[in-house]
Amino acid sequence: MVEITARKKLEARALAVLTPAGEGFRTKPVKALDLSFEGIADDSHAGWTRAADARTPWYKRGTDIRNVRQISLVSVEDLAAISEALDVPTIAAAWIGANVVVQGVENFSYLPAGTLLFFGEACVLRIEEQNAPCRQAGRAVQDRYPDVEGLETGFAKAAKGLRGVVASVDRPGLARAGEAISVHVPAQWIY
Amino acid sequence: MVEITARKKLEARALAVLTPAGEGFRTKPVKALDLSFEGIADDSHAGWTRAADARTPWYKRGTDIRNVRQISLVSVEDLAAISEALDVPTIAAAWIGANVVVQGVENFSYLPAGTLLFFGEACVLRIEEQNAPCRQAGRAVQDRYPDVEGLETGFAKAAKGLRGVVASVDRPGLARAGEAISVHVPAQWIY
Repeated sequence: MVEITARKKLEARALAVLTPAGEGFRTKPVKALDLSFEGIADDSHAGWTRAADARTPWYKRGTDIRNVRQISLVSVEDLAAISEALDVPTIAAAWIGANVVVQGVENFSYLPAGTLLFFGEACVLRIEEQNAPCRQAGRAVQDRYPDVEGLETGFAKAAKGLRGVVASVDRPGLARAGEAISVHVPAQWIY
Repeated sequence: MVEITARKKLEARALAVLTPAGEGFRTKPVKALDLSFEGIADDSHAGWTRAADARTPWYKRGTDIRNVRQISLVSVEDLAAISEALDVPTIAAAWIGANVVVQGVENFSYLPAGTLLFFGEACVLRIEEQNAPCRQAGRAVQDRYPDVEGLETGFAKAAKGLRGVVASVDRPGLARAGEAISVHVPAQWIY
Protein backbone atom coordinates (compact mmCIF):
# COMPACT_ATOMS: atom_id res chain seq x y z
CA MET A 1 0.00 0.00 0.00
CA VAL A 2 1.32 3.38 -1.01
CA GLU A 3 0.26 6.57 0.74
CA ILE A 4 1.21 9.90 -0.74
CA THR A 5 1.43 13.40 0.63
CA ALA A 6 2.05 16.21 -1.81
CA ARG A 7 5.16 18.35 -1.74
CA LYS A 8 4.91 21.40 0.48
CA LYS A 9 6.85 24.47 1.55
CA LEU A 10 7.48 25.66 5.11
CA GLU A 11 9.07 28.85 6.36
CA ALA A 12 11.77 28.79 9.02
CA ARG A 13 14.71 30.80 10.29
CA ALA A 14 18.40 30.11 10.86
CA LEU A 15 18.65 31.19 14.49
CA ALA A 16 22.40 30.53 14.46
CA VAL A 17 25.13 29.07 12.25
CA LEU A 18 28.23 27.50 13.77
CA THR A 19 31.70 26.36 12.68
CA PRO A 20 34.07 23.88 14.30
CA ALA A 21 35.53 25.33 17.50
CA GLY A 22 38.85 23.57 17.02
CA GLU A 23 38.55 21.13 19.92
CA GLY A 24 36.56 17.91 19.97
CA PHE A 25 33.43 18.16 17.89
CA ARG A 26 32.23 21.38 19.47
CA THR A 27 31.18 24.29 17.28
CA LYS A 28 30.96 28.06 17.82
CA PRO A 29 28.49 30.63 16.45
CA VAL A 30 29.60 32.78 13.50
CA LYS A 31 27.89 35.35 11.30
CA ALA A 32 27.84 33.12 8.23
CA LEU A 33 28.99 29.77 6.90
CA ASP A 34 30.70 29.84 3.51
CA LEU A 35 29.65 26.48 2.11
CA SER A 36 31.25 24.68 -0.83
CA PHE A 37 30.02 21.41 -2.33
CA GLU A 38 32.27 19.69 0.20
CA GLY A 39 30.82 21.42 3.23
CA ILE A 40 32.48 23.83 5.69
CA ALA A 41 36.15 24.60 5.03
CA ASP A 42 38.45 23.25 7.78
CA ASP A 43 35.66 21.06 9.16
CA SER A 44 36.61 17.44 9.74
CA HIS A 45 33.18 16.55 8.32
CA ALA A 46 33.89 18.28 4.99
CA GLY A 47 34.57 16.31 1.82
CA TRP A 48 32.85 14.60 -1.08
CA THR A 49 33.57 11.32 0.67
CA ARG A 50 34.17 10.19 4.25
CA ALA A 51 35.41 7.10 6.06
CA ALA A 52 32.75 4.56 7.08
CA ASP A 53 32.28 4.44 10.87
CA ALA A 54 29.96 3.09 13.55
CA ARG A 55 27.02 4.85 11.88
CA THR A 56 27.43 2.68 8.75
CA PRO A 57 27.98 -0.83 10.14
CA TRP A 58 27.18 -2.36 6.71
CA TYR A 59 30.57 -1.05 5.53
CA LYS A 60 33.98 -2.12 6.79
CA ARG A 61 35.22 0.68 9.04
CA GLY A 62 37.37 3.15 7.11
CA THR A 63 35.87 2.37 3.70
CA ASP A 64 35.65 5.48 1.53
CA ILE A 65 31.93 6.24 1.05
CA ARG A 66 29.80 9.13 -0.20
CA ASN A 67 29.62 11.84 2.45
CA VAL A 68 25.99 12.50 3.35
CA ARG A 69 26.96 14.01 6.72
CA GLN A 70 28.57 17.31 5.74
CA ILE A 71 26.32 19.57 7.81
CA SER A 72 24.56 18.94 11.12
CA LEU A 73 21.29 20.80 11.74
CA VAL A 74 19.17 20.93 14.87
CA SER A 75 16.08 22.90 15.84
CA VAL A 76 15.81 25.08 18.90
CA GLU A 77 12.45 23.44 19.66
CA ASP A 78 13.96 19.92 19.57
CA LEU A 79 16.88 21.00 21.78
CA ALA A 80 14.39 22.44 24.28
CA ALA A 81 12.50 19.12 24.31
CA ILE A 82 15.73 17.22 25.01
CA SER A 83 16.75 19.51 27.87
CA GLU A 84 13.25 19.24 29.34
CA ALA A 85 13.39 15.43 29.15
CA LEU A 86 16.80 15.44 30.84
CA ASP A 87 15.72 18.08 33.37
CA VAL A 88 18.65 20.39 32.63
CA PRO A 89 18.32 24.17 32.00
CA THR A 90 19.54 24.12 28.41
CA ILE A 91 21.42 22.18 25.75
CA ALA A 92 23.46 24.36 23.44
CA ALA A 93 23.82 23.45 19.78
CA ALA A 94 27.54 24.27 20.07
CA TRP A 95 28.10 21.52 22.66
CA ILE A 96 26.89 18.79 20.34
CA GLY A 97 28.59 19.93 17.15
CA ALA A 98 25.63 21.38 15.27
CA ASN A 99 26.28 23.75 12.34
CA VAL A 100 22.82 25.27 11.96
CA VAL A 101 20.11 25.96 14.53
CA VAL A 102 16.70 26.20 12.90
CA GLN A 103 13.63 27.81 14.42
CA GLY A 104 10.00 27.44 13.37
CA VAL A 105 9.64 23.90 11.99
CA GLU A 106 7.79 21.43 14.18
CA ASN A 107 9.15 17.89 14.24
CA PHE A 108 12.24 19.25 12.52
CA SER A 109 14.17 16.01 13.01
CA TYR A 110 11.56 14.19 10.91
CA LEU A 111 11.98 16.22 7.73
CA PRO A 112 12.46 13.51 5.10
CA ALA A 113 15.50 12.82 2.93
CA GLY A 114 15.42 15.00 -0.15
CA THR A 115 14.05 18.05 1.67
CA LEU A 116 15.80 21.19 0.38
CA LEU A 117 16.59 24.15 2.65
CA PHE A 118 17.00 27.45 0.80
CA PHE A 119 19.00 30.06 2.70
CA GLY A 120 17.99 33.45 1.31
CA GLU A 121 19.15 33.62 -2.30
CA ALA A 122 22.35 31.75 -1.60
CA CYS A 123 23.12 28.24 -0.48
CA VAL A 124 20.82 25.24 -0.51
CA LEU A 125 21.17 22.22 1.77
CA ARG A 126 19.76 18.76 1.01
CA ILE A 127 18.58 16.75 4.00
CA GLU A 128 20.07 13.27 3.80
CA GLU A 129 18.91 11.51 6.95
CA GLN A 130 17.84 11.87 10.55
CA ASN A 131 20.79 12.18 12.88
CA ALA A 132 21.04 9.50 15.55
CA PRO A 133 22.11 10.55 19.05
CA CYS A 134 25.68 9.47 19.80
CA ARG A 135 27.56 8.82 23.04
CA GLN A 136 29.97 11.64 22.19
CA ALA A 137 27.13 14.18 22.37
CA GLY A 138 25.97 12.60 25.63
CA ARG A 139 29.44 13.07 27.10
CA ALA A 140 29.48 16.70 25.96
CA VAL A 141 26.21 17.36 27.79
CA GLN A 142 27.39 15.44 30.86
CA ASP A 143 30.57 17.57 30.96
CA ARG A 144 28.44 20.71 31.23
CA TYR A 145 26.39 19.31 34.10
CA PRO A 146 28.85 17.29 36.20
CA ASP A 147 26.45 17.23 39.17
CA VAL A 148 23.57 15.64 37.23
CA GLU A 149 23.77 11.86 37.08
CA GLY A 150 23.29 9.72 33.98
CA LEU A 151 23.33 12.38 31.28
CA GLU A 152 25.94 10.65 29.14
CA THR A 153 23.79 7.57 28.61
CA GLY A 154 20.46 9.33 29.13
CA PHE A 155 21.09 11.73 26.25
CA ALA A 156 20.77 9.06 23.54
CA LYS A 157 17.33 8.01 24.83
CA ALA A 158 16.09 11.54 25.42
CA ALA A 159 17.33 12.80 22.06
CA LYS A 160 15.84 10.04 19.91
CA GLY A 161 13.90 11.74 17.11
CA LEU A 162 15.12 15.13 18.37
CA ARG A 163 18.81 15.12 17.35
CA GLY A 164 18.20 16.95 14.06
CA VAL A 165 19.28 15.91 10.61
CA VAL A 166 22.43 15.74 8.53
CA ALA A 167 22.64 17.37 5.13
CA SER A 168 24.83 17.80 2.08
CA VAL A 169 25.35 21.00 0.10
CA ASP A 170 23.09 21.03 -2.94
CA ARG A 171 24.20 24.49 -4.08
CA PRO A 172 27.18 26.30 -2.53
CA GLY A 173 26.95 29.77 -1.01
CA LEU A 174 26.61 31.66 2.25
CA ALA A 175 24.32 30.52 5.05
CA ARG A 176 23.82 33.54 7.28
CA ALA A 177 22.76 33.64 10.92
CA GLY A 178 19.30 35.14 11.28
CA GLU A 179 18.13 34.72 7.73
CA ALA A 180 14.94 33.10 6.51
CA ILE A 181 15.00 29.49 5.31
CA SER A 182 12.49 28.17 2.80
CA VAL A 183 11.95 24.46 3.45
CA HIS A 184 10.84 22.41 0.42
CA VAL A 185 9.50 19.05 1.58
CA PRO A 186 9.20 16.49 -1.24
CA ALA A 187 6.15 14.33 -1.90
CA GLN A 188 6.16 11.31 0.39
CA TRP A 189 4.74 7.83 0.73
CA ILE A 190 5.27 4.81 2.96
CA TYR A 191 6.89 2.04 0.98
CA MET B 1 1.28 13.28 13.05
CA VAL B 2 4.26 11.05 12.48
CA GLU B 3 3.91 7.50 11.26
CA ILE B 4 6.92 5.22 11.24
CA THR B 5 7.75 2.00 9.46
CA ALA B 6 10.90 0.19 10.52
CA ARG B 7 13.85 -0.32 8.21
CA LYS B 8 13.66 -3.48 6.16
CA LYS B 9 15.63 -5.52 3.63
CA LEU B 10 14.40 -6.86 0.29
CA GLU B 11 16.09 -9.18 -2.17
CA ALA B 12 16.19 -8.35 -5.88
CA ARG B 13 18.23 -9.05 -9.00
CA ALA B 14 20.00 -6.89 -11.57
CA LEU B 15 18.44 -8.31 -14.71
CA ALA B 16 20.62 -6.08 -16.88
CA VAL B 17 23.10 -3.22 -16.60
CA LEU B 18 23.52 -0.71 -19.41
CA THR B 19 25.97 2.00 -20.51
CA PRO B 20 25.43 4.98 -22.81
CA ALA B 21 25.05 3.83 -26.42
CA GLY B 22 26.75 6.92 -27.79
CA GLU B 23 23.70 8.45 -29.45
CA GLY B 24 20.95 10.42 -27.75
CA PHE B 25 20.27 9.16 -24.27
CA ARG B 26 19.93 5.50 -25.29
CA THR B 27 21.87 2.84 -23.41
CA LYS B 28 23.08 -0.67 -24.30
CA PRO B 29 23.44 -3.80 -22.15
CA VAL B 30 26.91 -4.71 -20.90
CA LYS B 31 28.26 -7.38 -18.57
CA ALA B 32 29.14 -4.94 -15.82
CA LEU B 33 29.22 -1.25 -14.95
CA ASP B 34 32.44 -0.01 -13.37
CA LEU B 35 31.13 2.72 -11.11
CA SER B 36 33.17 5.49 -9.52
CA PHE B 37 31.85 8.09 -7.07
CA GLU B 38 31.01 10.19 -10.12
CA GLY B 39 28.96 7.53 -11.88
CA ILE B 40 29.61 5.73 -15.17
CA ALA B 41 32.75 6.80 -17.05
CA ASP B 42 31.98 8.54 -20.35
CA ASP B 43 28.34 9.01 -19.35
CA SER B 44 27.01 12.53 -19.78
CA HIS B 45 25.23 12.01 -16.44
CA ALA B 46 28.51 11.36 -14.59
CA GLY B 47 30.00 13.90 -12.24
CA TRP B 48 29.91 15.14 -8.66
CA THR B 49 27.86 18.06 -9.91
CA ARG B 50 25.57 18.74 -12.87
CA ALA B 51 23.88 21.71 -14.50
CA ALA B 52 20.39 22.59 -13.26
CA ASP B 53 17.72 21.89 -15.88
CA ALA B 54 13.94 21.60 -16.32
CA ARG B 55 13.83 19.02 -13.50
CA THR B 56 15.06 21.61 -10.98
CA PRO B 57 13.02 24.73 -11.81
CA TRP B 58 13.90 26.27 -8.44
CA TYR B 59 17.42 26.82 -9.79
CA LYS B 60 18.42 29.07 -12.69
CA ARG B 61 19.09 26.80 -15.66
CA GLY B 62 22.77 25.89 -15.88
CA THR B 63 23.54 26.46 -12.18
CA ASP B 64 26.10 23.99 -10.89
CA ILE B 65 24.30 21.74 -8.37
CA ARG B 66 24.94 18.47 -6.57
CA ASN B 67 24.41 15.56 -8.95
CA VAL B 68 21.77 13.23 -7.54
CA ARG B 69 21.00 11.77 -11.00
CA GLN B 70 24.13 9.74 -11.74
CA ILE B 71 22.41 6.42 -12.34
CA SER B 72 18.93 5.65 -13.71
CA LEU B 73 17.25 2.46 -12.50
CA VAL B 74 13.98 0.89 -13.64
CA SER B 75 12.24 -2.38 -12.82
CA VAL B 76 11.17 -4.92 -15.38
CA GLU B 77 7.79 -5.07 -13.65
CA ASP B 78 7.26 -1.31 -13.93
CA LEU B 79 8.29 -1.33 -17.60
CA ALA B 80 5.75 -4.09 -18.24
CA ALA B 81 3.05 -2.02 -16.56
CA ILE B 82 3.89 0.98 -18.76
CA SER B 83 3.82 -1.06 -21.98
CA GLU B 84 0.51 -2.60 -20.92
CA ALA B 85 -0.96 0.84 -20.25
CA LEU B 86 0.24 2.07 -23.64
CA ASP B 87 -0.86 -1.15 -25.37
CA VAL B 88 2.54 -1.79 -26.96
CA PRO B 89 4.38 -5.14 -26.88
CA THR B 90 7.36 -3.97 -24.85
CA ILE B 91 9.34 -1.00 -23.63
CA ALA B 92 13.08 -1.63 -23.45
CA ALA B 93 15.15 -0.07 -20.70
CA ALA B 94 17.76 0.82 -23.34
CA TRP B 95 15.34 3.06 -25.24
CA ILE B 96 14.75 5.31 -22.24
CA GLY B 97 18.32 5.57 -21.02
CA ALA B 98 18.18 3.29 -17.98
CA ASN B 99 21.45 1.97 -16.50
CA VAL B 100 20.09 -0.84 -14.32
CA VAL B 101 17.05 -3.08 -14.78
CA VAL B 102 15.92 -4.53 -11.45
CA GLN B 103 13.67 -7.56 -11.02
CA GLY B 104 11.78 -8.66 -7.95
CA VAL B 105 10.83 -5.49 -6.07
CA GLU B 106 7.18 -4.48 -6.22
CA ASN B 107 6.47 -0.75 -6.52
CA PHE B 108 10.14 -0.31 -7.31
CA SER B 109 9.67 3.32 -8.34
CA TYR B 110 8.43 4.10 -4.82
CA LEU B 111 11.56 3.02 -2.96
CA PRO B 112 12.30 6.05 -0.77
CA ALA B 113 15.30 8.36 -0.83
CA GLY B 114 18.10 6.92 1.24
CA THR B 115 17.44 3.32 0.17
CA LEU B 116 20.77 1.53 -0.41
CA LEU B 117 21.20 -1.09 -3.14
CA PHE B 118 24.08 -3.52 -2.50
CA PHE B 119 25.37 -5.25 -5.64
CA GLY B 120 27.05 -8.45 -4.47
CA GLU B 121 30.10 -7.48 -2.42
CA ALA B 122 30.94 -4.55 -4.63
CA CYS B 123 29.21 -1.29 -5.40
CA VAL B 124 26.40 0.34 -3.47
CA LEU B 125 23.90 2.79 -4.95
CA ARG B 126 21.91 5.34 -2.93
CA ILE B 127 18.41 6.10 -4.19
CA GLU B 128 17.96 9.86 -4.37
CA GLU B 129 14.49 10.37 -5.81
CA GLN B 130 11.75 8.99 -7.99
CA ASN B 131 12.41 9.64 -11.67
CA ALA B 132 9.75 11.69 -13.43
CA PRO B 133 8.78 10.65 -16.96
CA CYS B 134 10.17 13.07 -19.55
CA ARG B 135 9.15 13.94 -23.11
CA GLN B 136 12.49 12.64 -24.39
CA ALA B 137 11.65 9.12 -23.19
CA GLY B 138 8.20 9.47 -24.77
CA ARG B 139 9.77 10.37 -28.10
CA ALA B 140 12.10 7.37 -27.84
CA VAL B 141 9.14 5.02 -27.35
CA GLN B 142 7.19 6.75 -30.12
CA ASP B 143 10.14 6.27 -32.51
CA ARG B 144 9.95 2.52 -31.93
CA TYR B 145 6.23 2.36 -32.66
CA PRO B 146 5.67 4.89 -35.46
CA ASP B 147 2.26 3.38 -36.28
CA VAL B 148 0.85 3.83 -32.76
CA GLU B 149 -0.59 7.27 -32.13
CA GLY B 150 0.04 9.45 -29.08
CA LEU B 151 2.91 7.58 -27.45
CA GLU B 152 5.15 10.61 -27.14
CA THR B 153 2.70 12.46 -24.91
CA GLY B 154 1.00 9.34 -23.55
CA PHE B 155 4.22 8.00 -22.10
CA ALA B 156 4.50 10.64 -19.38
CA LYS B 157 1.00 9.84 -18.10
CA ALA B 158 1.37 6.07 -18.37
CA ALA B 159 4.80 6.06 -16.75
CA LYS B 160 3.91 8.18 -13.71
CA GLY B 161 5.11 6.28 -10.65
CA LEU B 162 6.64 3.63 -12.90
CA ARG B 163 9.66 5.45 -14.38
CA GLY B 164 12.08 4.11 -11.79
CA VAL B 165 14.45 6.06 -9.59
CA VAL B 166 17.71 7.95 -9.88
CA ALA B 167 20.64 7.15 -7.65
CA SER B 168 24.14 8.25 -6.71
CA VAL B 169 27.10 5.99 -6.03
CA ASP B 170 27.50 5.46 -2.29
CA ARG B 171 30.46 3.07 -2.65
CA PRO B 172 32.28 2.55 -5.98
CA GLY B 173 32.72 -0.87 -7.59
CA LEU B 174 31.35 -3.23 -10.21
CA ALA B 175 27.62 -3.69 -10.77
CA ARG B 176 27.26 -6.95 -12.70
CA ALA B 177 24.39 -8.08 -14.88
CA GLY B 178 22.55 -11.01 -13.28
CA GLU B 179 23.77 -10.56 -9.75
CA ALA B 180 21.70 -10.34 -6.59
CA ILE B 181 20.90 -6.94 -5.10
CA SER B 182 20.21 -6.48 -1.41
CA VAL B 183 17.82 -3.56 -0.96
CA HIS B 184 18.04 -1.75 2.39
CA VAL B 185 14.96 0.44 2.87
CA PRO B 186 15.36 3.03 5.66
CA ALA B 187 12.80 3.69 8.39
CA GLN B 188 10.06 5.99 7.12
CA TRP B 189 7.40 8.36 8.27
CA ILE B 190 5.05 10.88 6.73
CA TYR B 191 6.12 14.36 7.72
